[in-house]
Amino acid sequence: MREILDAVASGDLSPAEAEARLAGYATTDAGRFDAAREQRRGIPEAVLAEGKTPDEVASMALAALETTGRALITRADDDHVAAVREALPADATVERDDRARTLAVHGPSFDPPDIDARVAVVTGGTSDAAVAGEAAMLVRAVGATVERIEDVGVAHLGRILDHLETLRAADIVVVAAGREGALPTVVAGLIDTPVIGVPVSTGYGHGGEGESALLSMLQSCTVLSVVNVDAGFTAGAQAGLIARAIAGAREE
Amino acid sequence: MREILDAVASGDLSPAEAEARLAGYATTDAGRFDAAREQRRGIPEAVLAEGKTPDEVASMALAALETTGRALITRADDDHVAAVREALPADATVERDDRARTLAVHGPSFDPPDIDARVAVVTGGTSDAAVAGEAAMLVRAVGATVERIEDVGVAHLGRILDHLETLRAADIVVVAAGREGALPTVVAGLIDTPVIGVPVSTGYGHGGEGESALLSMLQSCTVLSVVNVDAGFTAGAQAGLIARAIAGAREE
Amino acid sequence: MREILDAVASGDLSPAEAEARLAGYATTDAGRFDAAREQRRGIPEAVLAEGKTPDEVASMALAALETTGRALITRADDDHVAAVREALPADATVERDDRARTLAVHGPSFDPPDIDARVAVVTGGTSDAAVAGEAAMLVRAVGATVERIEDVGVAHLGRILDHLETLRAADIVVVAAGREGALPTVVAGLIDTPVIGVPVSTGYGHGGEGESALLSMLQSCTVLSVVNVDAGFTAGAQAGLIARAIAGAREE
Amino acid sequence: MREILDAVASGDLSPAEAEARLAGYATTDAGRFDAAREQRRGIPEAVLAEGKTPDEVASMALAALETTGRALITRADDDHVAAVREALPADATVERDDRARTLAVHGPSFDPPDIDARVAVVTGGTSDAAVAGEAAMLVRAVGATVERIEDVGVAHLGRILDHLETLRAADIVVVAAGREGALPTVVAGLIDTPVIGVPVSTGYGHGGEGESALLSMLQSCTVLSVVNVDAGFTAGAQAGLIARAIAGAREE
Amino acid sequence: MREILDAVASGDLSPAEAEARLAGYATTDAGRFDAAREQRRGIPEAVLAEGKTPDEVASMALAALETTGRALITRADDDHVAAVREALPADATVERDDRARTLAVHGPSFDPPDIDARVAVVTGGTSDAAVAGEAAMLVRAVGATVERIEDVGVAHLGRILDHLETLRAADIVVVAAGREGALPTVVAGLIDTPVIGVPVSTGYGHGGEGESALLSMLQSCTVLSVVNVDAGFTAGAQAGLIARAIAGAREE
Amino acid sequence: MREILDAVASGDLSPAEAEARLAGYATTDAGRFDAAREQRRGIPEAVLAEGKTPDEVASMALAALETTGRALITRADDDHVAAVREALPADATVERDDRARTLAVHGPSFDPPDIDARVAVVTGGTSDAAVAGEAAMLVRAVGATVERIEDVGVAHLGRILDHLETLRAADIVVVAAGREGALPTVVAGLIDTPVIGVPVSTGYGHGGEGESALLSMLQSCTVLSVVNVDAGFTAGAQAGLIARAIAGAREE
Amino acid sequence: MREILDAVASGDLSPAEAEARLAGYATTDAGRFDAAREQRRGIPEAVLAEGKTPDEVASMALAALETTGRALITRADDDHVAAVREALPADATVERDDRARTLAVHGPSFDPPDIDARVAVVTGGTSDAAVAGEAAMLVRAVGATVERIEDVGVAHLGRILDHLETLRAADIVVVAAGREGALPTVVAGLIDTPVIGVPVSTGYGHGGEGESALLSMLQSCTVLSVVNVDAGFTAGAQAGLIARAIAGAREE
Amino acid sequence: MREILDAVASGDLSPAEAEARLAGYATTDAGRFDAAREQRRGIPEAVLAEGKTPDEVASMALAALETTGRALITRADDDHVAAVREALPADATVERDDRARTLAVHGPSFDPPDIDARVAVVTGGTSDAAVAGEAAMLVRAVGATVERIEDVGVAHLGRILDHLETLRAADIVVVAAGREGALPTVVAGLIDTPVIGVPVSTGYGHGGEGESALLSMLQSCTVLSVVNVDAGFTAGAQAGLIARAIAGAREE
Repeated sequence: MREILDAVASGDLSPAEAEARLAGYATTDAGRFDAAREQRRGIPEAVLAEGKTPDEVASMALAALETTGRALITRADDDHVAAVREALPADATVERDDRARTLAVHGPSFDPPDIDARVAVVTGGTSDAAVAGEAAMLVRAVGATVERIEDVGVAHLGRILDHLETLRAADIVVVAAGREGALPTVVAGLIDTPVIGVPVSTGYGHGGEGESALLSMLQSCTVLSVVNVDAGFTAGAQAGLIARAIAGAREE
Repeated sequence: MREILDAVASGDLSPAEAEARLAGYATTDAGRFDAAREQRRGIPEAVLAEGKTPDEVASMALAALETTGRALITRADDDHVAAVREALPADATVERDDRARTLAVHGPSFDPPDIDARVAVVTGGTSDAAVAGEAAMLVRAVGATVERIEDVGVAHLGRILDHLETLRAADIVVVAAGREGALPTVVAGLIDTPVIGVPVSTGYGHGGEGESALLSMLQSCTVLSVVNVDAGFTAGAQAGLIARAIAGAREE
Repeated sequence: MREILDAVASGDLSPAEAEARLAGYATTDAGRFDAAREQRRGIPEAVLAEGKTPDEVASMALAALETTGRALITRADDDHVAAVREALPADATVERDDRARTLAVHGPSFDPPDIDARVAVVTGGTSDAAVAGEAAMLVRAVGATVERIEDVGVAHLGRILDHLETLRAADIVVVAAGREGALPTVVAGLIDTPVIGVPVSTGYGHGGEGESALLSMLQSCTVLSVVNVDAGFTAGAQAGLIARAIAGAREE
Repeated sequence: MREILDAVASGDLSPAEAEARLAGYATTDAGRFDAAREQRRGIPEAVLAEGKTPDEVASMALAALETTGRALITRADDDHVAAVREALPADATVERDDRARTLAVHGPSFDPPDIDARVAVVTGGTSDAAVAGEAAMLVRAVGATVERIEDVGVAHLGRILDHLETLRAADIVVVAAGREGALPTVVAGLIDTPVIGVPVSTGYGHGGEGESALLSMLQSCTVLSVVNVDAGFTAGAQAGLIARAIAGAREE
Repeated sequence: MREILDAVASGDLSPAEAEARLAGYATTDAGRFDAAREQRRGIPEAVLAEGKTPDEVASMALAALETTGRALITRADDDHVAAVREALPADATVERDDRARTLAVHGPSFDPPDIDARVAVVTGGTSDAAVAGEAAMLVRAVGATVERIEDVGVAHLGRILDHLETLRAADIVVVAAGREGALPTVVAGLIDTPVIGVPVSTGYGHGGEGESALLSMLQSCTVLSVVNVDAGFTAGAQAGLIARAIAGAREE
Repeated sequence: MREILDAVASGDLSPAEAEARLAGYATTDAGRFDAAREQRRGIPEAVLAEGKTPDEVASMALAALETTGRALITRADDDHVAAVREALPADATVERDDRARTLAVHGPSFDPPDIDARVAVVTGGTSDAAVAGEAAMLVRAVGATVERIEDVGVAHLGRILDHLETLRAADIVVVAAGREGALPTVVAGLIDTPVIGVPVSTGYGHGGEGESALLSMLQSCTVLSVVNVDAGFTAGAQAGLIARAIAGAREE
Repeated sequence: MREILDAVASGDLSPAEAEARLAGYATTDAGRFDAAREQRRGIPEAVLAEGKTPDEVASMALAALETTGRALITRADDDHVAAVREALPADATVERDDRARTLAVHGPSFDPPDIDARVAVVTGGTSDAAVAGEAAMLVRAVGATVERIEDVGVAHLGRILDHLETLRAADIVVVAAGREGALPTVVAGLIDTPVIGVPVSTGYGHGGEGESALLSMLQSCTVLSVVNVDAGFTAGAQAGLIARAIAGAREE
Repeated sequence: MREILDAVASGDLSPAEAEARLAGYATTDAGRFDAAREQRRGIPEAVLAEGKTPDEVASMALAALETTGRALITRADDDHVAAVREALPADATVERDDRARTLAVHGPSFDPPDIDARVAVVTGGTSDAAVAGEAAMLVRAVGATVERIEDVGVAHLGRILDHLETLRAADIVVVAAGREGALPTVVAGLIDTPVIGVPVSTGYGHGGEGESALLSMLQSCTVLSVVNVDAGFTAGAQAGLIARAIAGAREE
């Protein structure tokens, strides 16, 4: 604790960041931001914009930036993005992924992590891109390399087989798929790398809200682990944790 | 009607068969047997043994044999089989498929149909065999040729690709699969033949009663039609109807 | 491959179509279009407009037109239709079905298939018309003849019996029905032609999202195969595949 | 109250019956029997044997006999029946319906009601007979006439049309059906008599526990009211209440 | 048929009404209207406005008016009502029930039925009024008398007991209730009149879409029959059919 | 801790009890027993016999007796009871409730708690008795007084009204009900005492596994809190915690 | 009754209030207000604004104010609030909680209850605040003291442990939690105070409408009682009833 | 391939093993054994005994032993174990885990893998032990070290905190939990290691078949991936794949 206070005294640490480190979270009008999550859990907290007002998102994004040097925002629409951009200090850099509806903001002094691990993020079709993009943001946030493989649905097996080499070169594979959700099973059957399946809520009629894809992945006749429907964030974060473990082992 | 009565008079037709033709069904102690189904629907009625006593099954099997020259029995356990064998006239021939729990009985004068059509019946794993066997019995009952392709689950794509030629030579393909139920989608993506998916109630935990497989087939990103969980009978009968249509067209 | 390149050189084939034939799909801003589907699967790919922006739909429709000579679009609202019409070359012809929300576009040199097979498309009520129309478009796309039979709900049996002759003359019957979904069962009980049931999401209260109709068709006491709720596209495509098989047999 | 006590004094009423009339129920070791139900509700209480021991059933049957002059027992297996027969006084008469698993016991002085109303009880197939038999017992218990129409499933419309006259002659129609549960809709579409549908838990796979039949009846495109799955008792009692109202009106 | 044609010739019957009587339905741009329903089923067909455009509703209402002398419209919003009013001939009379969203239109020569039967329509709370009003319209349409009893929810038993006399005087009771749906059970426990329960989709959280009320009524420990969630139309029509049977018996 | 060790040294505390107090649980072959639960939570841990072998139950019961002076066992069948009786020391006293399948064992030096609070435990019918008995055991275990009110189902309101005085005299009311689960709502509507509802898995058909009763209680239009289906233990323990709070307040 | 009429005569009671006391409810255009609820049940009735028009809410709020001296309104949006404010007499005081969407209105002569009991209201995250606020309003309405503990989700155990003292000082604890709903279990495991869990409908994908949280609380391995999803009102009212019982005992 | 044949010739490889390597699977009477799975997927295939006869299991176990040098068997009851032991060659060693119902058989020349990675396998209660044991067998099968942490349910947080050091020392953590399934969330909130949750089908009433635990894990407010209910095999295999990746990185 003394260390933190010395750093505040010397100006190396903002009071907000110091408070966040000591208390474990930053308090904003829109709720608490878990500033200590990255230290405790190895993955940064993100701000879920959906269901929040633009002002609330901007306020939590600022708290994140001040206390951790960056802000990750998911499921942000145009209004959220505008409010965040307006609220940001001039020296912050912003990366937006339109399809994934994500925003990654870095303060000028933020030193992005860079680890020696490779995560393939695979989609079955165009409509899985948003979920996959969210996963990719999280993987990048822990410093791992992302390989995107897109539109390799099981109705056309040839497309998947074209990417076998990339899949085999990855340390972990995240596969997002909607409708019948068979892609993670087919991919996992081809390689000996851990695969994380993300069911996507595309589809229609009976089971169309992602239920069919979730069930398929839970019932897979090969080995998979799964996250909730549309949980690109969770899949990316879990892949990030595994990537950190592998990269850490490489450095031992 | 006169024709039927003449045939009874001349001994070419048993009274039971005549009654069945006139009334549309034969009455037994265990319920009615729809003797006219084959004429009306193109596919013979079968006796579902499950949930009936051995005596009831034997009684309905006899009614079927007397009125249509044959009896098809599904989901028969050892007791059902014993009761049917005991009740049969000496000149009847019996084919039993243990795994499929089916029994096909033919009277001495029965002239089995023989049509120029080919149905492939495919399974993902050992536990799909019973359902597939039931489908195969129905296909054979309309006189089409059955090609069995077994244990070609999607976790090992190579197995499926080995059978592409047989699949392409078929007029219709029936695919039985449990767990994640992805096999019909993968098969249908490879060929331009109609595919009928049969979900099988293997699996465990959430969605394990065949729900997952059924949803997968309903949500398939390729073109399939589907029958209910474990409905090997229905899949085989539907394939039989299509086979008859194709064979009929061949003969035109 | 040489053939394709020669055709490009001679101007008989556009580069886009050549690329599509070689790669198996055309790449647009809005995702990939599976240009080779018709060759591989026997049925053309369609563009699902629902959930896409008008621009995305127009861009995929153009890709379809350029690579396969036609474009089939489903679930298109007025904005989608306007965008497609604006994007089309002047020499394309467009057929729109308002109730079915479909659009069939043909390039000037497209030679529509024409096969010797007949598909009856039956509805129980007015609200099944959209789904039936989608099925009809797909049947026509493979060149088969469509017979529409409308508003023959089971609450008034006389209506169905009036159409027995047309039903018997068909090679395949597609039946769309909502609410209690009993119509496919009643129709199938009357004829020896294969029937494909399409549950429709009309209804209300418990089971009103098409669940009741789907369950009824899966539990049918006669022989049916089924597609997902509102899956007019799939039912029409499956009927089209069977029609092609029958027409092919007629030509043998 | 005085009347009741006088009747006890004069021996016209047993103390048990008197207590039941005064308190509204008879107390047995196996729980209370609602002896006043018939007076209050117009339909007699029945003893549900399922889930009770043979002794408990016998004890409640005796209480019913003593307090109301009769005992109706449903879902009774062989052990229940034996225990009841053993416990009964010698002068009681017993009617058992094996398929329906019901038992109707009458004391020597019981004067069965007899009302001028007619209830048709219809089944789709053999497996609906138990449920229909339970309904029939209740209808008979209020004194109405029962007409049974059996095995008229919708897969064979001709069978139903053969019984139109009987259906039209009935005051109320109870229709029991499993699988897709379409029979009540088809019947109700043919007549202008009130129809009560009883879903039966026959079927298999998805929706096979009677869910499909229940949903079909709730979603019926004609006018029906419905009871729970396998609730033959409730359907018969409701038909009995309506029959009493109609017979009462006839007598006015 | 000759009679009908004579009536047309003499001007006693409009050609539209004649066609409807002969064909069984009237054809409009918006679909068919089942003009013969009342003759066949004893209850008039109604036009469900929900999900139709105002023009479609007006067109079907006119067809109903022309062929049957009246039009019943359910779930009509302000736009539907305006369109119907504009389309109507000047001599038609209109009754609107705002809360129930119903519209009853009569032509000048329509002779409303009037039968000697009494139906009580009961609600648990304010939010059940729309469903109950729909039921009441149908009861009135067959000519029976409606008694409304409102806001007698089970959380305050005294309110129900205040209405015992009215309930006992009714020939049939329709009870609409949302939330826990216990009211039909409590009412039926008090009287010996047939009770029809209508679950209402008020409520929230788990089971809040009327599922809880529907299940309660299906599981009732007393005798009830039930219709689907919010099916005021069906409940009223079923009560109307029973009322007709009772009134008919009174007239015998 | 010193206190505990002194008590062991002086023989006032067995080593097993001392270990349990220090570690928080006793270790047996059949798993850990949470010996400190009563101290931490205010309610004793019970041994759930269902799903355990008789030996496992006996071994955990002994551990409970040694470490806390008593053992509470739920859902015990005859074999469990026999094994526990055989394993017990001679000086233990045993109370068994057959219908509730519970067993309460006390060591000779156990000083049962006795608090000034009164809990009414109410059932709708005979089949709710087991669940209610489990609740009653837990209430007694914290020393409160139990008042049983039985068989007061909502189909006969008079029965409930007879017990109003007892209900009003209670500090808390636990109401167990199956089928439509309306009883807790009716009871809570009559009094101003907190009511805890326990849904019971009696019933049949749709919603018959206690789902209907659970939903009814969650949707209640009056104020209730609820526990899971058949969770007599939890309801009794929660009532016990509230009783302790009230009795504690009485003593302040 | 005489007392009430005397009070009216003397001007101590408004006629509206007198009518409400005598009849048990006040009648407004928007339905009945249960004015006697507080006397009968110990907790005041509240007006649920959701699903009502602003005018209806204002009219019921006035009725509440006139008959009980106060009005509690839940789930009120800005339009509801404006209408209520406009309708109120000038001397009424209004407390609004924006996040909880509640409104508590008191007339000038209303004497708020004040009881000696303490209820802790705990939330897992920001999105549980609305539900918790609704619960808090009800607790305050019975006069108990509310302690709010916010944002102590289980993903960061340290936050909960910081509040142990406050939790232990409470007489009852209400815990609102969405997503996995584990917080009530963790809290209840730490204290010996009764805990009421309120599942909140935050979450996404499979089980995201509060189903997951509800199931977790019903399955809790510690002792809890539960209310429906988002039922802050019910949780607060139940806590209020228990608080009254405890405070009453303190005063004995 | 030549290599394999040379090895057969020299006797270093049995013909069965050679065939398995070449064909990818061994054929037995009881179905195919995927002998090449370990090479292709990195994890050995196991024989699921449940649902197979003892003879079938023994036959597949032998095939596994002959082709891969070992056999892993899951969900084996006493009869399965007896049949396997009898069928085994004398020189095979067998490890049985009774609670987990697993059997690990090694041939004399099998050289077990040994990798530098550590997997913690955690349970919430006694009833999770079987599932956890299955997971542990798979982890050991890839050669990683297993740390078992048992009975640390969330109702008693102190138990979990006692094991923080072991949890932090692990490379991956598998957490099995039934009932409310909160344990994986609580564990994952404490450490920065990847956590895989396994829902266990303990529990009762609503959600008691593992649904509640599955939903909790999918909805977790921290980062987890999940497998199906009771899928100890899959969780162990997935942990094994990650362990291999980490150990591989350590060796680089």
